[in-house]
Amino acid sequence: MSLLKKILKGERAAIAKAITLVESSILKDQKESKQLISELILNPGHSVRIGFSGSPGVGKSTFIESFGSYLVSKGYKLGILAIDPSSQLTGGSILGDKTRMNEISKNENTFIRSTPSRGSLGGVSIGTREAAIILDSAGYDYIFIETVGVGQSETMAANLVDIFSLIVGPGSGDELQGIKKGITEYADIFIVNKADGDLKIQASKTASDYQSSLNYLSKSKDSIEKKVLLVSSIEQTGMNNVTNTIEEIISSNRKTGLFEKRRSNQLAYWIKEEVKNHIQQKVDIVIGKNGELEQMISKVLSGEDTLYNSIDQVLKKILK
Amino acid sequence: MSLLKKILKGERAAIAKAITLVESSILKDQKESKQLISELILNPGHSVRIGFSGSPGVGKSTFIESFGSYLVSKGYKLGILAIDPSSQLTGGSILGDKTRMNEISKNENTFIRSTPSRGSLGGVSIGTREAAIILDSAGYDYIFIETVGVGQSETMAANLVDIFSLIVGPGSGDELQGIKKGITEYADIFIVNKADGDLKIQASKTASDYQSSLNYLSKSKDSIEKKVLLVSSIEQTGMNNVTNTIEEIISSNRKTGLFEKRRSNQLAYWIKEEVKNHIQQKVDIVIGKNGELEQMISKVLSGEDTLYNSIDQVLKKILK
Repeated sequence: MSLLKKILKGERAAIAKAITLVESSILKDQKESKQLISELILNPGHSVRIGFSGSPGVGKSTFIESFGSYLVSKGYKLGILAIDPSSQLTGGSILGDKTRMNEISKNENTFIRSTPSRGSLGGVSIGTREAAIILDSAGYDYIFIETVGVGQSETMAANLVDIFSLIVGPGSGDELQGIKKGITEYADIFIVNKADGDLKIQASKTASDYQSSLNYLSKSKDSIEKKVLLVSSIEQTGMNNVTNTIEEIISSNRKTGLFEKRRSNQLAYWIKEEVKNHIQQKVDIVIGKNGELEQMISKVLSGEDTLYNSIDQVLKKILK
Repeated sequence: MSLLKKILKGERAAIAKAITLVESSILKDQKESKQLISELILNPGHSVRIGFSGSPGVGKSTFIESFGSYLVSKGYKLGILAIDPSSQLTGGSILGDKTRMNEISKNENTFIRSTPSRGSLGGVSIGTREAAIILDSAGYDYIFIETVGVGQSETMAANLVDIFSLIVGPGSGDELQGIKKGITEYADIFIVNKADGDLKIQASKTASDYQSSLNYLSKSKDSIEKKVLLVSSIEQTGMNNVTNTIEEIISSNRKTGLFEKRRSNQLAYWIKEEVKNHIQQKVDIVIGKNGELEQMISKVLSGEDTLYNSIDQVLKKILK
């Protein structure tokens, strides 16, 4: 049986093999991968893709594990994909400790994979996008896409999913003011975690702070209502509320056509990213050949050539 | 007198005019701007460019104002450039309230400018780069480049400056673990702010936590020693220590050749970014023309064409 057919039947080994294939940088694998993904796109499943973002310390992994096991206990099939942004300087991974997903990963209705982002333009993890296609065709109900709270990877994740959610901790209302502005715009759902024990009251206050800020923000634009939800990952409370909210949003978006529009936008984003990546590779080759860049710099510094003339020279070598 | 000459004489009005010129998107201005910058590059000053980054809430602006006025009181000429990342969704600015720099901006030895980042590839604010060149040629001693704590803009800022510093608040040691890893690699100096009043002890503890983490991290690589400094912006304490540390690092980097190497890398980064931006514009034009992208997507979804074939078609139209 072909890999395609095995995936459509939901075979775990085939899914794992396919994800390895789409992550491969070997030319032969890439050809095979492109063929496979093209076919899978024509065999879509019914999955809902949910993005989870949040700064370190808000209990994102704990929430994902807790909410994930809640969904699995309800009989859903769940795929979890983590985008693992590599540090631009060392190429090292920030995440890494995937053992934290230990309990949920033992369940046969969950499939977990952490894909490193390729250090290319925009830190886009090409593997994650394809992995979501594979899990969708394989019949998974929910696909979680987890990203660490770095601006760039969130932009990317938001362009991969049907619903984007931001997990925050108690007392993090400050974030709404500054850095998180971009992210709050992308997010459909805000999940205030740690509503348990000593932090319960504070979490509750944070949730109302978020809600009022969001109400205020949404007034200024064409207002899609954003939901703020209160959960405790360790006590596994509020999970039904998260599920219901997700289902409501999806159902509403299907009615208004927003669901299809986002899916189509995802494909548009994908095409653009692939184009960018290809071009970036070409730029690196042209500019990196025979110390071309170093020569340019010394010419600019000596006044032999101008900066902008050097740039034009590079562009002439690349563009039609 | 030409604009160039006026800038070299340090005339404020000429500097302001030149910065407006480099920010302009009018073709005629851009030509003039390129000519000007090319000439200024051949007339370098002696300025040290320092990047300041930090999450909202750590008192970054207060620190910059406090440290800035300290330097100005010592007789230095100071330029402050803020990179103002626009939100990708709305195009709106996150910063904006530049009135907070009120006091220091009244001093005739300071020049403050906030340039919006162009929403292009990597969120690079081209204006900031050129503004730094202008201020350098105009004889400024220190040029601060301030960026909000978003991953992408920090990568960029680190590629614009001679020294990169991260401002943190008391009790932020957590950050070292996760999200900030990339940034801590870029940073030369860590400034723990708010070492005053009730937070004094905690700030001091945070500083030692940072120092031990950094000592640990630096062991694994070719170890350039990173400095952790304790300051109070409101009491204006620790500022001489910051100045001395900056001068020590610059002096040491000049001896080892690292200073020149970084300057050369800055130019390389600049060339690459400009090339990327030009190509991105071309991609947007090719892909945006006559609903090209929409047609591609519907063909992919209907199976009439594959995703990868569509991408190849776009590339063929752009690349040589």
